[in-house]
Amino acid sequence: MSSERLIYLPLGGAGEIGMNAYVYGYGAPGEERLILVDLGVAFPDMDGTPGVDLIMPDIAWLKERTDRLEAVFITHAHEDHIGAVSHLYNELGAPIYARAFTANIARGKLSEYGLPDEAVTTASAWPETVKAGPFSIGFLPISHSIPESAGLVIDSPAGRVVHSGDFKLDPAPVVGEAFDPELWAEVAKPGVRALVCDSTNVFSPQPGRSESELGKPIEELVLSAQGMVVATTFASNVARLKTLAEAGDRAGRSIVLLGRAMRRMVEAAVETGVLRSFPKVVSPEEAQDIPRENLMLLVTGSQGERRAASAQLARGKYRGLELKEGDMFLFSSKTIPGNERGVIRIMNQLSEKGIDVVDDHGGLYHVSGHANRPDLQRMHEIMRPQMLIPMHGEHRHLREHARLAEAGGIQSVIAVNGMMLDLSGNAPTVADYVETGRTYLDGSVKVGALDGIVRDRIRMALNGHMVVSVVLDEDDDPIDGAWVDIKGLAEMGSSNAGLVEVVEEDLSQFLGRANRKTLTDDDKLEEGLRRVARQSTMNEIGKKPEVTVVISRLG
Amino acid sequence: MSSERLIYLPLGGAGEIGMNAYVYGYGAPGEERLILVDLGVAFPDMDGTPGVDLIMPDIAWLKERTDRLEAVFITHAHEDHIGAVSHLYNELGAPIYARAFTANIARGKLSEYGLPDEAVTTASAWPETVKAGPFSIGFLPISHSIPESAGLVIDSPAGRVVHSGDFKLDPAPVVGEAFDPELWAEVAKPGVRALVCDSTNVFSPQPGRSESELGKPIEELVLSAQGMVVATTFASNVARLKTLAEAGDRAGRSIVLLGRAMRRMVEAAVETGVLRSFPKVVSPEEAQDIPRENLMLLVTGSQGERRAASAQLARGKYRGLELKEGDMFLFSSKTIPGNERGVIRIMNQLSEKGIDVVDDHGGLYHVSGHANRPDLQRMHEIMRPQMLIPMHGEHRHLREHARLAEAGGIQSVIAVNGMMLDLSGNAPTVADYVETGRTYLDGSVKVGALDGIVRDRIRMALNGHMVVSVVLDEDDDPIDGAWVDIKGLAEMGSSNAGLVEVVEEDLSQFLGRANRKTLTDDDKLEEGLRRVARQSTMNEIGKKPEVTVVISRLG
Repeated sequence: MSSERLIYLPLGGAGEIGMNAYVYGYGAPGEERLILVDLGVAFPDMDGTPGVDLIMPDIAWLKERTDRLEAVFITHAHEDHIGAVSHLYNELGAPIYARAFTANIARGKLSEYGLPDEAVTTASAWPETVKAGPFSIGFLPISHSIPESAGLVIDSPAGRVVHSGDFKLDPAPVVGEAFDPELWAEVAKPGVRALVCDSTNVFSPQPGRSESELGKPIEELVLSAQGMVVATTFASNVARLKTLAEAGDRAGRSIVLLGRAMRRMVEAAVETGVLRSFPKVVSPEEAQDIPRENLMLLVTGSQGERRAASAQLARGKYRGLELKEGDMFLFSSKTIPGNERGVIRIMNQLSEKGIDVVDDHGGLYHVSGHANRPDLQRMHEIMRPQMLIPMHGEHRHLREHARLAEAGGIQSVIAVNGMMLDLSGNAPTVADYVETGRTYLDGSVKVGALDGIVRDRIRMALNGHMVVSVVLDEDDDPIDGAWVDIKGLAEMGSSNAGLVEVVEEDLSQFLGRANRKTLTDDDKLEEGLRRVARQSTMNEIGKKPEVTVVISRLG
Repeated sequence: MSSERLIYLPLGGAGEIGMNAYVYGYGAPGEERLILVDLGVAFPDMDGTPGVDLIMPDIAWLKERTDRLEAVFITHAHEDHIGAVSHLYNELGAPIYARAFTANIARGKLSEYGLPDEAVTTASAWPETVKAGPFSIGFLPISHSIPESAGLVIDSPAGRVVHSGDFKLDPAPVVGEAFDPELWAEVAKPGVRALVCDSTNVFSPQPGRSESELGKPIEELVLSAQGMVVATTFASNVARLKTLAEAGDRAGRSIVLLGRAMRRMVEAAVETGVLRSFPKVVSPEEAQDIPRENLMLLVTGSQGERRAASAQLARGKYRGLELKEGDMFLFSSKTIPGNERGVIRIMNQLSEKGIDVVDDHGGLYHVSGHANRPDLQRMHEIMRPQMLIPMHGEHRHLREHARLAEAGGIQSVIAVNGMMLDLSGNAPTVADYVETGRTYLDGSVKVGALDGIVRDRIRMALNGHMVVSVVLDEDDDPIDGAWVDIKGLAEMGSSNAGLVEVVEEDLSQFLGRANRKTLTDDDKLEEGLRRVARQSTMNEIGKKPEVTVVISRLG
């Protein structure tokens, strides 16, 4: 048996949908040469991460081993695969490889932070390969909801691993390469040690549908519209943008792209030759001179994001354009679980304006970018891997995908973030557990998810906040009792007196009773003041606030 | 034309799903005698109402007119129809009428706040009626997802209005009365001036399904289970609890009810004779001596509520019971939009424990309690009202329901909260706009939604909080510069120095430069300190925090 081994270690993406980051390594245990596949973000929400800008995988493990890191490979340009490159590039310092469209997006992101274009190398598609230490990596084209998505063929002395990336089996994806079962079968021929595979849609029982099926229904819908038509979809779904724009074009409408992300994606697709034809686009300014029944806006914000074009249009005027009764608004998208409230808010705002909202309830105007259950089975069949490692999914998806593989006679194991697998043997074995977690981009700094900063924010949101200030003189006697300031707390309590006055009175009584030991000891005094403030507030308004105690001593 | 009029005024429930409260009045304008239909709550969330306990309609308009309020009628015992009675009873002081089951639940709620049983009068079903000023009100039985739901027949000198309540057209609802089309047609015979009608499921294109259709699939599912079976549904869906319990019973399993709300509902149903047979229930303590394959738990928390039994079981042991690999967990429920994250969290926790989760994706294990689009059309047909007023829905539901009515030749108008309609004429007309809104139960006090208290909490959650304290001596000179305390903010900034130290330094410089005018004026000083603190924090960590400035002056 060789003393070298092939390892797989998800740092993000295995146990959640988002912030993908998968490490592969080959070498003697503890000395493996490493590559990283994808470096994505997840998005914050009020429930768990209020005020946070982005959620990234905690890459501490990798940062301690940058001398062993050969390169970073990005499978495609979705934020959950590419979004952290600009924020973490400096900490890794490894070269980034991606196909042309993805590389274009990556360079755009890096340049916003003053990082060099040369950080990213454009890779050609399989059978071309990139050498990275003991690895040889090929970008294997596959269909998805963004151009030039790729699986990775990861060859090492331990054999071939195929990392599926995000994918669907689309024979006619409108933009980009169709799924080519013969190409994939060819790759599988020498034998695949492990297929590390997208699990997102394992619970969807029907075979996936092709992007090209949407053209006709969308065209009919747009032709039926009387007023202005607005359509929203994921900015990166260039194929959908093309389908929508062509439907508008054929209906004699001028196309407007609203939203920076959308324009950026189309621009990148054109620059890299991925998108060869797209109807002529007019600017929002030009659109103001065009009758509304001759306009079609393609806008960002399909997930209800408050600052995106959809939300702005639902609220009122945006870049000189305004929706009116009789217009139509199409959600050519699905709502990602957790985003329902924002999307419904927009739908109701549009309803109030008398705008007809069309969403995808009938399945006519949107198809998923991920392989459904039967498609996953087909992929298993084509690749016939020695083992299947489910990735890109919450725990329930990974578990179901592992069961699906086993039902098909392929051994599988659930590896969540931080679980290092040794793939060298006949069966996958757990080699190690690595501490992982989440890093928040918060304003301009990075904070750890467990630093307590966000926890404190959540507590203030739930409980309100109270400042208790006391000034003590040279003899440690309080001057003027205690002062109270509140934020996020009711001003009047149940005794019909002001909350501040009641708590100040209780605190002054506490100070009056306090002995020398307490008055001379900041910790004791603070503890006492906090306790009284919380209890007094509880009595008055039924809440225990977060309390900041400020003790000022003169002399 | 009479100088008296019939008015309709929704204070809650028209423009949202939740906190139903509908006023009807009859009399000379401004002197109408009033009745209130339903007094419900909505539930808070982190996005918009962090820390809030319950959301209630703002009934200020009604409070100023309690002398004209004859009575309150509760259609059924769902929280969004009954939840605010205990919190607002004292402010209204009017008698409450409800059918036996609903009255039982209402009395239970009132008694928790020391309010008397006599506040609630049990009403018999139509053709019995209750007199309330110029009104005569009858409770017309109809099927829904809770026992003894009722529509209201509201007769006044201006004719008959039918308020549908929440309903579905179920010929076999398992518990409670089936929908009786002949009874409703009978009521419609003299002519219905207005049908005020549930709009919840207007976007559901298929006819609704009967509660009784679930018995067989659920029984088959439970029979197929190997380990313990846990099923969750809405606590108030007594019919579902019966179906689930009987399936368990037939599979030789002992039934355990977990969760206070669920036990309370079954108890009320038994006490009022609504539920005549229910399998024997064992306590959680007794269950510990029963083999797990002979147990079926019915538990609360189908919406992912963190403190409910489902969430507790997903996390670990609850009341001595613990889930294990091979157990089955059934969601006999749908996830209400906005609750997805909580439900998915539970599903993943269960997946980690190796428990098989069954949800309602196939439509086998749950049916809705609301009338779908064709059912609404059927109701319109049966009642043939002169006008249809859509209620119980977000704006998009109300709008769609009005369109549906008009397509069927019935005039309709969208009346949202605060819009008073005059129903006396041939067509509904807007009589007035009344200020409405939301009142929060926050701890033990009520606060207005626009008081700014919750807004401040949200801001602290998004931006963090900073306390700036300054002590000034008798000559208005600052002692020791400024002190800074932070909560919910990163401790280290981009300059790799402590945030607190950097901001304190900037503040001290500001104080050093400040002129007399600033130092002697609390408002000016506070404004300056806040500005510097925010800017300095922005420079360091890219966030502008909420700032509380505490100025202490000696002498």
